[in-house]
Amino acid sequence: MPRPRALLAMSPKLPAQLFDERQRERLEHLVDLVRPDAVAALDDSAGDIGEVEILVTGWNAPRLDPETLDRMPKLRAVVHAAGTVKTFVTDEVFARGLRVTSVADANAVPVAEYTFAAILFGAKRAKPLAEWYRLNRTSRDVTGVHWLGTYGITIGVIGASRTGRRVISLLRSLDAAVQLHDPYCTPAEATELGVTLVGLDELLATSDVVTVNAPATPETRHMLDARRIGLMRDGTVLVNTARGSLIDHEALLPHLVSGRLDAVLDVASPEPPAPDSPLYDLPNVLLTPHIAGALGNEVARLGRAAVDELAAYLDGRPMPGEVLAERLRHLA
Amino acid sequence: MPRPRALLAMSPKLPAQLFDERQRERLEHLVDLVRPDAVAALDDSAGDIGEVEILVTGWNAPRLDPETLDRMPKLRAVVHAAGTVKTFVTDEVFARGLRVTSVADANAVPVAEYTFAAILFGAKRAKPLAEWYRLNRTSRDVTGVHWLGTYGITIGVIGASRTGRRVISLLRSLDAAVQLHDPYCTPAEATELGVTLVGLDELLATSDVVTVNAPATPETRHMLDARRIGLMRDGTVLVNTARGSLIDHEALLPHLVSGRLDAVLDVASPEPPAPDSPLYDLPNVLLTPHIAGALGNEVARLGRAAVDELAAYLDGRPMPGEVLAERLRHLA
Repeated sequence: MPRPRALLAMSPKLPAQLFDERQRERLEHLVDLVRPDAVAALDDSAGDIGEVEILVTGWNAPRLDPETLDRMPKLRAVVHAAGTVKTFVTDEVFARGLRVTSVADANAVPVAEYTFAAILFGAKRAKPLAEWYRLNRTSRDVTGVHWLGTYGITIGVIGASRTGRRVISLLRSLDAAVQLHDPYCTPAEATELGVTLVGLDELLATSDVVTVNAPATPETRHMLDARRIGLMRDGTVLVNTARGSLIDHEALLPHLVSGRLDAVLDVASPEPPAPDSPLYDLPNVLLTPHIAGALGNEVARLGRAAVDELAAYLDGRPMPGEVLAERLRHLA
Repeated sequence: MPRPRALLAMSPKLPAQLFDERQRERLEHLVDLVRPDAVAALDDSAGDIGEVEILVTGWNAPRLDPETLDRMPKLRAVVHAAGTVKTFVTDEVFARGLRVTSVADANAVPVAEYTFAAILFGAKRAKPLAEWYRLNRTSRDVTGVHWLGTYGITIGVIGASRTGRRVISLLRSLDAAVQLHDPYCTPAEATELGVTLVGLDELLATSDVVTVNAPATPETRHMLDARRIGLMRDGTVLVNTARGSLIDHEALLPHLVSGRLDAVLDVASPEPPAPDSPLYDLPNVLLTPHIAGALGNEVARLGRAAVDELAAYLDGRPMPGEVLAERLRHLA
């Protein structure tokens, strides 16, 4: 039986990062790549793409609008070797009955790991105490910190997203209570996750650590506004590995400058912060340049997961990462 | 039946941190405290201690030498609400048939959590990239890092100590291979831990992250000497949450200054490092002031665990933290 014809559509340098020798072999065993390299555009430069049945996409995948889809009448599935498909998959893709899958779950792994490390180091006041050590160069003195350590604290997770759920799972190893705010999470799901479901205001007012893991949508923009940021108690550690737009940074800044709150921010708004932003230099803020997601070694996890999705599709098994038209709106 | 008489012997301020209301209640239900406060010395200032059967000790516990033990002829057990008992328990304690227990396992919890966070952030190059962001204030550029991310890496754990075992357990959630060096660990134990047992030189030469979790003993002093540090590959991340003496810091320094190795050091030698030490300022080194252990909130975990040990002792159940004379020598 001939293998289905497939095409890689993504940044040209990406396949080498996504597919190590083993995954490249699996991929070529499953499909017939109409060309060995990746195309960045699906126009004439891509060559003859009329026979393509499966698109394997990645970062910078070309937009799948009606004209582009018209050039690939045999296209049946899009396997996206990255997180969100929002940037290039249009409603038309679903209207034509194409199956779409992404490896958002594999993409959530490093974000959850980073978030967990941020919670541990945040609760430990590792950054403020390292800065203190650098300044004073003498044995530690922790009398200045609000509180320290994870034992018995309450951790508030905003968003039972893929990342949020993985974070919750990692938090189970701690002696800490975990509460969740998510408007789409049912009490039964919360029980299954082992968390207490609470309103957002309550979560902010009663958590020692708050981690933001909600998707960036018009509804979640400035979800943490001036009023809500004010609800957080002195000494609360705020972690954001989702998107900067979820937090009103202008409202947040005075709380960080005064030292009332600590933060670990892998994202910001604007991003990068303006060159004169205090975020870069505050001893109680760890600011990293949007590195929580798949990067470096982690890209190969996306490649392996994409080949797994592809194999499931070809076997007629359910694809764990399948994206359904009606869910696209709520996703990150 | 009268409750056995007990005495708290530790820093006078410590009991309030160790025992919250609930644990204080449990403690007073189990034993008859001959005085409500803690004594720092077991001399005349402690009052009448001749009837004491159980000593509950903590940080800065007075040394239990023969003269001191002579003052407490009815003493049967020492329950230590902290890690090592080496600092105050003498051979004479065991010679007199006293039972000794410690909550070293509870003390290992925050150290293992810190170590896990250090491994995650170390592999993510969080500190170097945060410093890069602070300097450049523009979108990330990770081309300068050796490698990044935990997917598929090899993590080398030196020492199957209480902390080492907990670290290994936390590492199971990662897509990483874990190898262990421990001269006292048997192949069967290693299999049970899910790790590959290797020699120290091999571990250093083949691990992407090396974490030091061995006890500080005369034998382990400068376990990582110039030759062994040289075995580590470029870009290896070294984590030390055990003791500074395990590493020859003079030999380590040039490798950190050149950027060949990254490090997360919660301990150092000397500690604190000299005021002019580059360790405080290197972008590829996160130096914290010995905070990995029980501190702040975590002290209450020690208190709860000590009451658990006490309850086990009084019930005649095995004490999970019991310290046996012949094991004292190998412990941290």
